[in-house]
Amino acid sequence: MTADRLIYLPLGGAGEIGMNAYVYGYGKPGKERLILVDLGVTFPDMDTSPGVNLIMPDVTWLADNADRLEAIFITHAHEDHVGAIGRLYPRLKAPIHARPFTRYHAQRKMEEAGQVPEAVIAADVFPKMIEAGPFKVGFLPLSHSIPESAGLVIDTPAGRVVHTGDFKLDETPVLGDPFDEALWREVAAPGVKALVCDSTNVFSTHPGRSEAEVGPELVTLIKDAPHMVVATTFASNVARVKQLADAGKAAGRSVCLLGRAMRRMIQAGVETGVLVDFPTTVTVEDARDIPRENLMLIVTGSQGERRAASAQLARGKYLGMSMAEGDMFLFSSKTIPGNERGVIRIMNAFSEMGVDIVAENDRYHVSGHANRPDLQRAHDIIDPKMVIPMHGEHRHLREHAKIAEECGRRSLVVVNGAVCDLTGDTPHVVEHVEADRVYLDGDILIGALDGVVRDRIRLALNGHVIVNVIVEGDEPLGDPWVELMGLPETGSSKAPLVDVLEEDLGQFLMRAGRKTLRDDDKIGEELKRIARKTANDEIGRKPEVTVVVSRLE
Amino acid sequence: MTADRLIYLPLGGAGEIGMNAYVYGYGKPGKERLILVDLGVTFPDMDTSPGVNLIMPDVTWLADNADRLEAIFITHAHEDHVGAIGRLYPRLKAPIHARPFTRYHAQRKMEEAGQVPEAVIAADVFPKMIEAGPFKVGFLPLSHSIPESAGLVIDTPAGRVVHTGDFKLDETPVLGDPFDEALWREVAAPGVKALVCDSTNVFSTHPGRSEAEVGPELVTLIKDAPHMVVATTFASNVARVKQLADAGKAAGRSVCLLGRAMRRMIQAGVETGVLVDFPTTVTVEDARDIPRENLMLIVTGSQGERRAASAQLARGKYLGMSMAEGDMFLFSSKTIPGNERGVIRIMNAFSEMGVDIVAENDRYHVSGHANRPDLQRAHDIIDPKMVIPMHGEHRHLREHAKIAEECGRRSLVVVNGAVCDLTGDTPHVVEHVEADRVYLDGDILIGALDGVVRDRIRLALNGHVIVNVIVEGDEPLGDPWVELMGLPETGSSKAPLVDVLEEDLGQFLMRAGRKTLRDDDKIGEELKRIARKTANDEIGRKPEVTVVVSRLE
Repeated sequence: MTADRLIYLPLGGAGEIGMNAYVYGYGKPGKERLILVDLGVTFPDMDTSPGVNLIMPDVTWLADNADRLEAIFITHAHEDHVGAIGRLYPRLKAPIHARPFTRYHAQRKMEEAGQVPEAVIAADVFPKMIEAGPFKVGFLPLSHSIPESAGLVIDTPAGRVVHTGDFKLDETPVLGDPFDEALWREVAAPGVKALVCDSTNVFSTHPGRSEAEVGPELVTLIKDAPHMVVATTFASNVARVKQLADAGKAAGRSVCLLGRAMRRMIQAGVETGVLVDFPTTVTVEDARDIPRENLMLIVTGSQGERRAASAQLARGKYLGMSMAEGDMFLFSSKTIPGNERGVIRIMNAFSEMGVDIVAENDRYHVSGHANRPDLQRAHDIIDPKMVIPMHGEHRHLREHAKIAEECGRRSLVVVNGAVCDLTGDTPHVVEHVEADRVYLDGDILIGALDGVVRDRIRLALNGHVIVNVIVEGDEPLGDPWVELMGLPETGSSKAPLVDVLEEDLGQFLMRAGRKTLRDDDKIGEELKRIARKTANDEIGRKPEVTVVVSRLE
Repeated sequence: MTADRLIYLPLGGAGEIGMNAYVYGYGKPGKERLILVDLGVTFPDMDTSPGVNLIMPDVTWLADNADRLEAIFITHAHEDHVGAIGRLYPRLKAPIHARPFTRYHAQRKMEEAGQVPEAVIAADVFPKMIEAGPFKVGFLPLSHSIPESAGLVIDTPAGRVVHTGDFKLDETPVLGDPFDEALWREVAAPGVKALVCDSTNVFSTHPGRSEAEVGPELVTLIKDAPHMVVATTFASNVARVKQLADAGKAAGRSVCLLGRAMRRMIQAGVETGVLVDFPTTVTVEDARDIPRENLMLIVTGSQGERRAASAQLARGKYLGMSMAEGDMFLFSSKTIPGNERGVIRIMNAFSEMGVDIVAENDRYHVSGHANRPDLQRAHDIIDPKMVIPMHGEHRHLREHAKIAEECGRRSLVVVNGAVCDLTGDTPHVVEHVEADRVYLDGDILIGALDGVVRDRIRLALNGHVIVNVIVEGDEPLGDPWVELMGLPETGSSKAPLVDVLEEDLGQFLMRAGRKTLRDDDKIGEELKRIARKTANDEIGRKPEVTVVVSRLE
């Protein structure tokens, strides 16, 4: 009889920063009872996923084994941890556990996707444990950049696993749970088999800074500002939003929150009781009547998102508010790699308006993730047999494994789709399952490899030629008709490209044999080949070509 | 009689980092004799210019006034200063002056575009001056990140202008011209009216570091590497390539250059005499037989360019070479904002191969541009009446103007298309000319605002529906025919999207009145509207729609 085993299987988040989804299993091989930790999204970009709304992990394997899934645990309310819960829940249908602030957001996601919000259950914190099949799971409160983040203490018959979620070691996080070393030591006391650990900031070599360090800097900055102050940060960083608002108040300013996400986060904080002393704010209607030098706006869009308040202010007006010469715009945030172009676009637009931009993110921002020395300290406190790096691109995971091994711990880079056996002393990958991505495209979920988005990228790179011919029996009826989209109107011959294409295609049809003209596929193939060749001669580019053959009988 | 005036008109480079093109003029308003400084390109991206090959300044204004153009001066051989010379020369046809290394590259650009390379004339350096109408222009040797960079000393009847080009204050640049304070003071001695000055690094608050500081760090790093070493940098940074090669040699390694640009730059350096003691290299054929621990490759692609050697090595083999576990890959470069995604993609691919990545660009790279304290020092030495910032995004120009004004100099942000009068004591903008961008798209130059690329972006974001109907008189002949590209195959109704569209469009046609069916525009408009609505109902997205109405008579 085969022995029970403890497995770890990332379906997202291991090899990327985004769409976290981690499976743990315990039981006979192939019959393990399962839990899922987090179910997040990642964001598309023009380079790889134009037109896509959101990117989610492909949970097909888990959905196929949904009868083995005991529960889902959400560590915190960031989109890359909770964003896919509404869309993918119908395929998984297991109870969802989350702390109240996280639950609030998870329930909104469920509602938006037409699912029952009651599936999300409010979780108490460690040492309270939630039973889920062979697992007992406790929410370990810790500090991050959103209220009520938690690690998970996962007790299994094979030993205790600590899954950190996203964390930093902040003893003064301003709001929410501080790093509590005594509590961590209590978690570590019985012995920990594996620490599955956030890797985001493994390349940052200095110890992380506390959220509390930002406040005084903000007060000094805003106090001295002569005109309107506008600040942006991640809306979910409620502690930061509070510190910004407090600094505005301290400078005698009325504070106005702009952007849906900003207002929703504050509302969630108040409704769930994590935010008790947020200063009074004014509505945007009132803000318009307040002298600019007495006003501070806190706005969404720190990453340059085109529809957020920052970008709209950069393009002109937003809800009647606009920036003017001498105003200050503060990025109390860092630019996530890949978002530089959008952020810089906003900075330059503000510069053109004469707005002073403050973007020293070492002074007015701190990260929510543990830096390398903090990771080493976390390893030391938890003192696990093995460290499994997660929440990182491959380079982060590899570096994190390296520092763990340098301290004499077993470690292994386990990427999305790899089933890792944690039962013995050494983690090892025993099999692989499909773990790709799905795209929410409009309202439809499509596979990243379905070719739909690949075709859109081709259209963007190459343009589109549509060729239309009508055939009756084995005779072309009239000339071929060409439409262009995304291509220059004229090419090297100076004649309209459409005319040159129609001429060349018409020549072919006139000379084509009866056999060809009876074969739609053959006609399509030949016309496509000719259209690409003619276009290449004329404009130096081979476009995408769609040939429509209409046959009259 | 109106007085002569001295004007400055950037056509590119002022409000962006890229496609530099600066016009100076002297004479009666509207009749100034002109010179052009630099004629560069900028690079496209998927967000704004998918499928575009290169972006160039729109020189229509200058082409319309080509009879007034006396000469073109190229400050150095970077693509953003020389890249458009071949393509745009035919519209300008003025003699081109450049120092020999720069001339070498300008001549290659001319040849590639089918122009006569002899139009590019080798320039001697200041105090030698070149006459060009009312201007006398001297090439001031200075340090940058490519050999033989030059500022321009531009003498006019209204006084001396110093146009810095790209520069840093490096007294030990390893190769090429060091910063020569005595020479700068000689330039300044007669009094300088205006300093038109590089703004790239205005936000870097520490003094710039010398190229010579990098060498010893490279030697230490490469000496200790156990396996193959691969380093990438900007191919045009010949001093860096030499330092990398020297460090490889010092570690007892054979050095092999990979990538066309890398080999071409070294060749240019040798042919023009700026590079005299580059170590012997081995061919890639020989490299394959050399033990990996004795080998160092220096490769193109520090910005993650998909076709360069770095990216090809990251995807697998390049010319028979490939990376292996324990190899080191060094980025002796910084990532230009906007290129992060491509660079990170390469890093992760190497990480998956077990390659150690070194990317501390404070240690193994120095910038080629003057930092803020260096700019202030340059202002002090040249001691101009006014400082006109150039070579920067708007935020750089604005900050640069601010630091000049803080030191009591007149300054003005002059953006592309603004004609700035420098004649008097205060620079002021007197008029605006068109100064947009043109795209090299395949082989064709198109205007950035022509809508061609906008259509391609729409195709990428929305997908394409092609609708085909045949009408005879006022009767539809058969059913409408639909083709999709870049759209999901099925929508919310679970039937193929093509079928749902054809059904709805067919319904409309059947019910359409005779008047509608005689009007192609009306049919097109209605079918487009219905196709967009049906698609939106089915897949939550309104696609681009092309309707082709074929009419049988």
